[in-house]
Parts: sequence; C-alpha cells; structure tokens
Amino acid sequence: MPAARVPDDRGMQSSRLEAFSDGVLAIIITIMVLELKLPTDGHSFAQLWHATGAGLLTYLLTFVYVGIYWSNHHHLFQVVRRVDGRVLWANLHLLFWLSLFPLTQRWLDESSIARDPTVVYGVNLLAAAVAYFLLQQAIFRTPTGSELREALGRDLKGKLSPVLYLAGIALAFVAPWAGLVPAVVVALVWLVPDRRVERYVQRLPGEEPPK
Amino acid sequence: MPAARVPDDRGMQSSRLEAFSDGVLAIIITIMVLELKLPTDGHSFAQLWHATGAGLLTYLLTFVYVGIYWSNHHHLFQVVRRVDGRVLWANLHLLFWLSLFPLTQRWLDESSIARDPTVVYGVNLLAAAVAYFLLQQAIFRTPTGSELREALGRDLKGKLSPVLYLAGIALAFVAPWAGLVPAVVVALVWLVPDRRVERYVQRLPGEEPPK
Amino acid sequence: MPAARVPDDRGMQSSRLEAFSDGVLAIIITIMVLELKLPTDGHSFAQLWHATGAGLLTYLLTFVYVGIYWSNHHHLFQVVRRVDGRVLWANLHLLFWLSLFPLTQRWLDESSIARDPTVVYGVNLLAAAVAYFLLQQAIFRTPTGSELREALGRDLKGKLSPVLYLAGIALAFVAPWAGLVPAVVVALVWLVPDRRVERYVQRLPGEEPPK
Amino acid sequence: MPAARVPDDRGMQSSRLEAFSDGVLAIIITIMVLELKLPTDGHSFAQLWHATGAGLLTYLLTFVYVGIYWSNHHHLFQVVRRVDGRVLWANLHLLFWLSLFPLTQRWLDESSIARDPTVVYGVNLLAAAVAYFLLQQAIFRTPTGSELREALGRDLKGKLSPVLYLAGIALAFVAPWAGLVPAVVVALVWLVPDRRVERYVQRLPGEEPPK
Repeated sequence: MPAARVPDDRGMQSSRLEAFSDGVLAIIITIMVLELKLPTDGHSFAQLWHATGAGLLTYLLTFVYVGIYWSNHHHLFQVVRRVDGRVLWANLHLLFWLSLFPLTQRWLDESSIARDPTVVYGVNLLAAAVAYFLLQQAIFRTPTGSELREALGRDLKGKLSPVLYLAGIALAFVAPWAGLVPAVVVALVWLVPDRRVERYVQRLPGEEPPK
Repeated sequence: MPAARVPDDRGMQSSRLEAFSDGVLAIIITIMVLELKLPTDGHSFAQLWHATGAGLLTYLLTFVYVGIYWSNHHHLFQVVRRVDGRVLWANLHLLFWLSLFPLTQRWLDESSIARDPTVVYGVNLLAAAVAYFLLQQAIFRTPTGSELREALGRDLKGKLSPVLYLAGIALAFVAPWAGLVPAVVVALVWLVPDRRVERYVQRLPGEEPPK
Repeated sequence: MPAARVPDDRGMQSSRLEAFSDGVLAIIITIMVLELKLPTDGHSFAQLWHATGAGLLTYLLTFVYVGIYWSNHHHLFQVVRRVDGRVLWANLHLLFWLSLFPLTQRWLDESSIARDPTVVYGVNLLAAAVAYFLLQQAIFRTPTGSELREALGRDLKGKLSPVLYLAGIALAFVAPWAGLVPAVVVALVWLVPDRRVERYVQRLPGEEPPK
Repeated sequence: MPAARVPDDRGMQSSRLEAFSDGVLAIIITIMVLELKLPTDGHSFAQLWHATGAGLLTYLLTFVYVGIYWSNHHHLFQVVRRVDGRVLWANLHLLFWLSLFPLTQRWLDESSIARDPTVVYGVNLLAAAVAYFLLQQAIFRTPTGSELREALGRDLKGKLSPVLYLAGIALAFVAPWAGLVPAVVVALVWLVPDRRVERYVQRLPGEEPPK
C-alpha cells in the first residue's frame, strides 16, 4: 500500500523524541528519592516513619503520576511514528511541567502538607494535564494523527482529570489533605492502563472494531 | 511460519519499556555516589577509610544488586518482545522498589549498620524480589510468555532468594551485620550470570537442547 | 542508487552519539530543579515567589535553551547518519559547555542576577553557540555532510545568535538584567522550530525545492 | 555468507548493554557539576575563580576521561554486536570504577589537590583502565571477538596508559600536582580518536588493509 506509506515517510521519526522523554521521565522519577529526608536524631523505625513517612507517601503518589504519564506517552507514540516541530515543542512543554514535580512534591513534603503547597502541587498536576492535552492536539495535526484520534475515542478520562484537579485545588482551601484526595482518585483511575490504544494497535487490518 | 509471527505482531514492543528501565537503573546506580560522605576533618587515607569505607562497601553491594537486576531484566526481555499494560505496571512496580535503594542504603550507611536500618534494607531487597517475581508472572500471561517460562525452568535461584532475605531480616535482630550476610550470599549466587535464557536464545530452531 | 549508498555505509552510525547526547541533555534539563531553593521561613505563596521566583524564571530560560539545543541537534542528525571521530569530539565539546549551564544558572540565581554572574552566563551561552558551530563544521566534512550544508542554507539564525550573546555580555556591564534581554530574544527566535531541515527531509526525491 | 551469520545470530544483542552504559556515562559526566562549589562570600569573577577554578579544571579533566571511555566503548561495540554474560559483568565492572570518578574528583577538589586524594584519583584511573582491559579480553572470547582483536592490533595506547597512571601515583608522593601530569598526558594521547577501529569498519569487504 504505497498510499499509506507516503505520509509515514514524511516528517521526522519519533524515536529520538521518545528516547529523550524517557530519559527526562526516568531522571524525574529517580531524583525525587535524593530529596527525601532521613531521621537525624536516631535510627529506629519510629523515627524513620516520623521523618520520612509523609515524604514516602507523596513520593509514591508522584511516582505513580510520572509512571502514568510515561505509560500514556508510550501509548501515544505507538500509533504516531512521525512528528513535526510543533509536536517537539508540545512535548518539551509537557516535560517542563513534569520536571517541576520534584520541586512541588518537595515543598509539599517539607510543609507537612500545608495549604499553599497543596495548591501549588495541584496547579502542577493541572498544568501537566493541559500540556498533555496540547500534545495530543499537536499530534492530531500530523499526517498520521487521525489514527490516534480514532484510537482515543471520546477520551473521557483525559477530560475528567483536569476537572478533578480543579476540585482538589478548591478543596485545599477547606482542608489541605482534602486537596490531595482528587489527585489520588485520578491516579487510581489512570492506573487501569489505557487499553484503548492497545486494542487499536492489536486489531488486525480488516478486522471490525469490537464495539 | 506465519502462525508464530501473528502473536509477535500483537501488543506493544518492549523496546521502550527496556529503554526507560535502563534509564532508571542507570540513574539509581550512579546517584548513590552523590550520597557518599567524604571526610570533613582531613585528607588522609585513614580519614577516607573512616568516613567513607562503610559507605563504599554498602555502595558496592547495592551496585551489584542493581547490576543483577539489570542483567536479569535484560535476559527477561531477550525472550519476550511484546508486552501489555499489565507488564508495563509490573515493571514500574519493580522500578519503584529499586528506586528506594539509594534511600535505604543511605540510611544503612549513616547508621553505621544499626539494627532497624538493616531490617529496612532487607525489606527493600525482599520487596524488589517479590516485584520481580510478579513481573515474571505478568510476562508469562502474554502471548509469547510461555517461551520465557520454558527458558526459566524451575527457577531455583529466584525461589531461594526471598527465603534468604527473610533469614537476613531475622538475623538482623540478633546482630545487625549478620543480617547482611544472606544479602551478600544471594549477590554472589546471582553474579554467576543467568545462563538459562542465554542457552535458550542460542539454541537454533530444530536443535535439541544439550541436556 | 548504489553510488549514494556507499558513503552512507562507511563511518560509524550516529545512533549511539544521539542516545548519549539525549542522556546528557535530559539530565542537564532535569537536575537544575534539584538546585532550586525553596522558602525556609514559611509555606505561603508570597514566600515561594520571594525565594524561588527568580530561580524559576532563569530555570525556564535555561530549559528553553537546552530544549532548543536538543531540537536542533535532533534536526542535525536527521540528515547525517554517519559520523567520524572528529564529530564525536565536536559533540562532546558541545556537551561540555551545555553541562555547565546548571552551574552558571545556579550562580546567576544565587546572586539575584548580579553583574559578573550575568556575564558568566552569557559567556556560557556564547561558548555553547561556538561549539555548536564547530560541530556543524565537523559534520560538513563527513561524506554525507554536503546534504546538511544544503539543508541549512545561509543559516542566518545561527550566525546572528553569537552577535546577540556578545551584545548581552556588553549590556550586563551597564545593567545586569539588561544583559539577559538578548538571551531571551535569541530563545524566542529559535523557539520557532527549524523548518529548514524538516522541509529538506520531507522533499521527495526528484521534487524541486520550493524556493 | 550463512557461515558468517550463524555466530552473529547467537548470544545476546549488545544494543541494550550500550544503551545502559550510555546512560551511566551520561549521568556520571553530568552530575559532577552538581558537586562544584560556588563562592559563598560574593559574586565577583575573582571569587568565582578562587572558589570554583580548581574544581572546574579537575571537572574538565574528568569530563575528558569519561568522554574518552565513552568514545572507546562506542568503537569497541561497533565491531562486536553479540555479547555473553561474561561481557555483561566485565562491562558493569568498568562502570563501577567509572561511577567512582565523581567521588574521587570531589575529594581531589575539596582537598585543593593534596597528596592522598591525588593518589586515590590515580588509583581510580588505574582501576578503570584495568577494567577496560578485562572487558576487551572478555569480548575477545566471544564468537566475533577475533575481529576486534584484529582491529585493535598491538594496542600500544592501551598498554601504555596504566604505566603512566602508576607513574602518576608514584609522583604524587613527590609533589601532588606532579601526580596529575601523567593523567593529563594520557588524556591528550587519547583525545586523538581511535582511528584503528574506524579504519577497520570502513574497509569494504575484499579490500586490502592499507598497511
């Protein structure tokens, strides 16, 4: 099918964009551990829990978020193999917001989950979600982008997440810890891996979509 | 043999999962050096040994462990080339526990090998081993997973390791340094590279297994 | 066309050079966040802005610069697939200057944009631009380098940037903040992605250049 | 030539070993900048030179060394594409010694080039050179290793370097700075890229070696 191959040969390969993003995400996910504070007054379980417990929990939450972004990013570029300059910069824009997670997570941890740090963490989550949305839009405009649009369908999870982040930001003004609840809910929703793209990739040509 | 190629074409390629894991493992193995304390009271060999010696030895032990995990991970995905969402998350789960090594190794080092830090380090080793086991199980369930199951055989080393970690955790309550002995033993057992998969990969089709 | 393929098969593949460069750039872009100082006297928005605001802005500027270098590097090696020892070292020379960004950006931030740190930051930008120019020259001398030369054309942006960095260094002696203005201007100019190479790659064989 | 392809299809691909090594080397080369101390008493050029000058010079030296190891590693695996477990661990052994460079370089820097830190730095250089030698030996024993042996020839540079490191260690007991001179000499010798492998790779089949 030469007609199908022509658009695929144009533009730039996405492999290096994926490798660079993998590098940034791998570093973000790992350096957060460097920031975790250990007990300075002793070496017992109780002191570890007191000094490091909250940090470990917010680290786990942020690890899951970076993992979700990596997993979704991975699925995104399974379908689209050719990118242009707009996609490059939409991707860097996403990486910028993700690279701030170690900072906002550290502030949240140092403040023992105070109000303003919870709001800033929520704004970071929201900004990353918006950047991911813009990346999808940029990919839709590439020659093979329509395949991704078809694979994603209505993208209910993608549209629901920002709403929940906004709810979390509002709730943080009531009680800081309550502001993190929507973030945990979104993480759990996304932990169920995005089978839409997987299903799309697995469908052999000519086969009817299962729905 | 088209029948063999169809399952191989379904699902997602494992290459990006491998690249991301390589990135995380490379960072874990390298940033631990940032944590090592240098002598603050002088610049002699004796002071270096006093301030940094124990840290270097536990760094070496953890380096070997991350190296073993990388090597086994490498062998694992030599056989299985296609993964699904379950494998992605089982892999992230493994990376989470491995990413805690710089933290638990640092606490062990700062405490000069006290009891509770040794127990926590042992729990980290145990959790990583369990996560690796779950990753294998997730791969077994993929279309090409049965090949891996065949390649691994009885997996005696994989089943023995958690038992030894548990023994180490128990021994730490008797004497902290004794709790590290089983960890060293397991590392030495695994340093002999896993020739099972290698042998499996090397066997040409139609050739009889040498045993 | 065997005549075209012979030079392409000689020399070394550029893929590993790209992977290594991606790794270094990914780390540079990410570790700068580790250096950002958080407020030590409280957890309010005002204190965050006071302690971290300037750092965030210079981080953003440096992030954009590393992003530009990555994007241009990516485009560079889209055209040239074979490299020699001279290109390897010209590339390492570029990475050296880029690796100093976290240091010069940190000094700039800690000094709250004083004169000498602004000059040093400008010298770093200038040195990286010179190193990039030398890398291009090294690539021109490889068997497939003439294609890149053709794709780049007059390279107005590449020639203008060092002039603006020099202007910034001079302006810093008048007023430090003024020394950063040309750096911001250059970043904005480059944020428009380099369509020259993209256009060159997309042109099908036999097609006439659009100009 | 099926006879040539059979050994090439056995064993494991070297690509992931290269990717992992690239990651570790990229991190080593970059995190050293995090260790560099900035002036704490002011923001002038003089204070920067006083506080950071020596660190920058030893950083440059170590950067060049890691660059040399990356470049040589790159050349090594240009020829040999299949590896076994012995090569994996010989490679990890090399990475272990390279991963200590940020530590020994930091001690050298903090001591303002005192005797014992210079000796330790020299021992690190020596150990890395020995590990590289052992890696070559491990590769020689793989099915395609004889090609590398032929490509390397007498390997004069590889045999001379350890002798010079030993001389540097001895000289450090006379005067610390003198102990660094052989290290600088070796770096300069190696900066001339290793054209032997390049030449070997570029020779087309059937062509006579130029010598």
